[in-house]
Amino acid sequence: MYRTHTCGQLRTNHVAQTVTLSGWVQRVRQLGGMTFVDLRDRYGITQLVFDMSINPTLCTAANKLGREFVVQVTGIVRERSSKNPQLPTGDVEIDTQTLQVLNAAKTPPFTIETDTDGGDDLRMKYRYLDLRRPGVQSNIIMRHQMAQATRQYLNNLAFLEIETPFLIKSTPEGARDFVVPSRLNPGQFYALPQSPQTFKQLLMVSGFDRYYQIVRCFRDEDLRSDRQPEFTQIDCEMAFVEREDVLQTFEGLLRYLLKEIKGYDLGTVERMSYDDAMRLYGSDKPDIRFGMAFTELNEVVKGHGFSVFDDAELIAGICATNCADYTRKQLDELTDWVKRPQIGAKGLVYVRYNPDGTLKSSVDKFYSPDQLLTWAQKMNAQPGDLLLILSGNTDKTRKQLGELRLEMGKRLGLRNPNEFKALWVLDFPLLEWDEEDQRWNACHHPFTRPRTQNFENINESEWGSLRAEAYDLCLNGNEIAGGSIRIHERALQEKVFSLLGMSEEEALQKFGFLMGAFEYGAPPHGGIAFGFDRLCAIMGGHESIRDFIAFPKNNSGRDTMIDAPSPIDAKQYRELHIATTIQQV
Amino acid sequence: MYRTHTCGQLRTNHVAQTVTLSGWVQRVRQLGGMTFVDLRDRYGITQLVFDMSINPTLCTAANKLGREFVVQVTGIVRERSSKNPQLPTGDVEIDTQTLQVLNAAKTPPFTIETDTDGGDDLRMKYRYLDLRRPGVQSNIIMRHQMAQATRQYLNNLAFLEIETPFLIKSTPEGARDFVVPSRLNPGQFYALPQSPQTFKQLLMVSGFDRYYQIVRCFRDEDLRSDRQPEFTQIDCEMAFVEREDVLQTFEGLLRYLLKEIKGYDLGTVERMSYDDAMRLYGSDKPDIRFGMAFTELNEVVKGHGFSVFDDAELIAGICATNCADYTRKQLDELTDWVKRPQIGAKGLVYVRYNPDGTLKSSVDKFYSPDQLLTWAQKMNAQPGDLLLILSGNTDKTRKQLGELRLEMGKRLGLRNPNEFKALWVLDFPLLEWDEEDQRWNACHHPFTRPRTQNFENINESEWGSLRAEAYDLCLNGNEIAGGSIRIHERALQEKVFSLLGMSEEEALQKFGFLMGAFEYGAPPHGGIAFGFDRLCAIMGGHESIRDFIAFPKNNSGRDTMIDAPSPIDAKQYRELHIATTIQQV
Repeated sequence: MYRTHTCGQLRTNHVAQTVTLSGWVQRVRQLGGMTFVDLRDRYGITQLVFDMSINPTLCTAANKLGREFVVQVTGIVRERSSKNPQLPTGDVEIDTQTLQVLNAAKTPPFTIETDTDGGDDLRMKYRYLDLRRPGVQSNIIMRHQMAQATRQYLNNLAFLEIETPFLIKSTPEGARDFVVPSRLNPGQFYALPQSPQTFKQLLMVSGFDRYYQIVRCFRDEDLRSDRQPEFTQIDCEMAFVEREDVLQTFEGLLRYLLKEIKGYDLGTVERMSYDDAMRLYGSDKPDIRFGMAFTELNEVVKGHGFSVFDDAELIAGICATNCADYTRKQLDELTDWVKRPQIGAKGLVYVRYNPDGTLKSSVDKFYSPDQLLTWAQKMNAQPGDLLLILSGNTDKTRKQLGELRLEMGKRLGLRNPNEFKALWVLDFPLLEWDEEDQRWNACHHPFTRPRTQNFENINESEWGSLRAEAYDLCLNGNEIAGGSIRIHERALQEKVFSLLGMSEEEALQKFGFLMGAFEYGAPPHGGIAFGFDRLCAIMGGHESIRDFIAFPKNNSGRDTMIDAPSPIDAKQYRELHIATTIQQV
Repeated sequence: MYRTHTCGQLRTNHVAQTVTLSGWVQRVRQLGGMTFVDLRDRYGITQLVFDMSINPTLCTAANKLGREFVVQVTGIVRERSSKNPQLPTGDVEIDTQTLQVLNAAKTPPFTIETDTDGGDDLRMKYRYLDLRRPGVQSNIIMRHQMAQATRQYLNNLAFLEIETPFLIKSTPEGARDFVVPSRLNPGQFYALPQSPQTFKQLLMVSGFDRYYQIVRCFRDEDLRSDRQPEFTQIDCEMAFVEREDVLQTFEGLLRYLLKEIKGYDLGTVERMSYDDAMRLYGSDKPDIRFGMAFTELNEVVKGHGFSVFDDAELIAGICATNCADYTRKQLDELTDWVKRPQIGAKGLVYVRYNPDGTLKSSVDKFYSPDQLLTWAQKMNAQPGDLLLILSGNTDKTRKQLGELRLEMGKRLGLRNPNEFKALWVLDFPLLEWDEEDQRWNACHHPFTRPRTQNFENINESEWGSLRAEAYDLCLNGNEIAGGSIRIHERALQEKVFSLLGMSEEEALQKFGFLMGAFEYGAPPHGGIAFGFDRLCAIMGGHESIRDFIAFPKNNSGRDTMIDAPSPIDAKQYRELHIATTIQQV
């Protein structure tokens, strides 16, 4: 037994007890013949005291302790003369009697504190030390609590946690699969699941009725910052449900998590169609912690000789409350911001609606103050507000204005990470046109139920306007979950596969088992999957998922700590019936 | 909303309510102008009634329902005239008002009942139907309950569930890794974890103190019946612990699971050294639901002219209580049984200790009744018992006698699947000699703490007798968990790697990160992993794990339902920088 108590446990009611503690040396201070050691573990910090005048040998040993040494001590708990109200254990200290170094430590390559001096690369290489930092440690502990609370909520609703296989079949479309060569089946490969989609649907066919799993998924995509090749989903499916049942169940989950983990009462979860979200916020995941919805201005700005607007498909603006005092320099900077390649706008039109009621714009040459006033009125602007207007192709302009809206929200402090607003986005398109591959792709996935079921009379020109029984749950402008009501009839599934350009043979080869299952009594069903890494990050008040994953990979998909991936040996190649096509140096 | 209640919910207090139910048609019976339909879902079965004289259209529709059709009905709950006490819902039935077929079903290829007419191959191909069978469904539900109870127990002890990566580094030794070619890192591969061993040790170095995970693991081994390429572990690790802490914690887990899931009170968990287990039961996982421990007879049987015994390294026997009446035919059959190649004994010596006190053996030519009596006494036999004796090389004889003991236990009904006896086997060897590769392997794994730490003076001839801080937990003769106290010092870890014949360079390349971590303040730590599939099967009273896994693979590692593994296309090969060495037909 290495300890009788943890370093976070002792209080004044333990005074006079002899205790044994183990932990890490956080710091050592020498002060007038006394040595004070802060001993740390996951549970807290306890102060150890050594007195040179009483036990010089022990005190000398304590003076030799370095940061992050692992030690075991015994001693007597006593009340501190000068208490530390910052620490739960701050009322007591240990009058140390014995000290044993369990393991020495080299000086860490960065400080083990919330604000560390270590850069990203160093922190990743020594992730086991990075994980000792209080901030990262509390993220990982919060993730544990989130997982447990998720299960509590779902278990109470009679959901069953059922494990699905990781070694499945490669059916590439959309994202790339990671594949695993089979030694026992030469020339054949398993794939790692991008999600347990077909298996959870089969579980509904099997009658399990309500399924969930907190499960690892894999996508071999080109990595952007904050996208990981392996990620975790809260994956759920329900039988005999309509959309409303799914929405109620899972906004309930989010509400439960916010209450349990953050003590936060999530109000109403609003709902918005995909079309409205795009029209009003230029995004399928609007941040509705603040307003600043778009106003479309085509009818009041066209026909006044300003060719930029006259030639534009869409002219739309946002109203930045109380920003009429923006200086020319600020406005120029904002214009540069929207013209950055990441945003891609050609320019920015502004109208200052001054507190005295006058209007000043960047297009005064073309528009009279009265005309500008009609814009302001249409945008519900008040004196003191600033109108920011973009124009061009509809889709692009919406996207650009959406980015500008988020940026203004950030600059105006309207995106408080401790406030949470959730939104259902509904009625997504069924199909989207893939310019690169010149084909229609499923917006959600090919198992999504279309809102129209009779495609015979629908011309391909209208396919883009077909809508699906698909829904996304957004939190603070992030998509945290997405799902749909599924197809449960073979004939309808075949039709959708054919819309996606899949031949009958290909459909059978890839998904024959699922279409077969639909013929043996498949119930209506639907479900959802939460991105667990992102949900943890957002609820933790962070944008980056990296520090909510114990052992993340870098942007090249590498784990620099263990140095993976790495070459394999010739015997492995031979046994797996594969060869590399890379010239070995 | 497809239903107001489930098919397992209605009781007499619902009488006169109008309800909506959805489910599967279990069976349709026509009886004197009435049609009775058993409607089934995961929660139960409810009887629907249709009356030809009241609503002939509806009743005719009901008569056309086939097995496994998915239907939705509305109707009024009424008390049955002839109740069915077998069913929780057996007091009521539904006076059906409307019937809607949600999905028709083809006739299933086998019956959806506990005792099905479907063979293994058919059941696996249509696993989604097999999973509807009550027996299989209840196994999967029990597995869910086991997972939740495991988490409850560990959460209460401040364990944290922390996810570790699935895409890691290949460090083959012992079992083969499954590998995953990296597209972004040409010529390099990830490996799927055989266990999260090194990561959980790093979590201890990080100070998380108590970790667990119910996690998928992967081993690319030649498949025996009942071994799956992917399997699930309850994986656990604790810091600042000695062996006793780990044993107490995890026999507590088993006790909790048996109580929660089976209502079973596990008594004391006994303990036995590996050496004793081998000497007394010929197994490192003895089934101690019954006695029949070995007695070694060398000193009483040698030197009487029976060369089989005189030349044998070990002569040992078991005493089968009340089996003296075994006929010659039974004994011949038992002799044939031990001589089967799977057992491999050369022969079987028996001694009948008759109820009248006389003794009759197969070696009466060499031994007098008085001599036989000393054997019986040494084996604590009573009149009426049967002594069964094997001889030969020590290890082989123990193994053979162990098999015979289990077989006799089975024949005598001493292995009751509803009785549970757990045993810790302790002090396993550190190393074992691998005849094939002519090298020493770690018995448990290379991170296991040796009981001896100074190897300098130990001759290789004694390496086989080195003992490790390793332990196995056995339940009813199955190893359900194994673990060890780990090495936490770099120097000791380097020594053990070198005992295993690993060069310094190789050790650094494979496990440099771990040895590095040991230098930055690694606490003493240890842990354990439970085989979750097997634990579920044994607690479910079954020997086979297959029906406790929702989607298992067959003995060739194939999922015959989805037809995986399967070929991948040329683009995938190209992107992954690999080629197949198999001639494509």
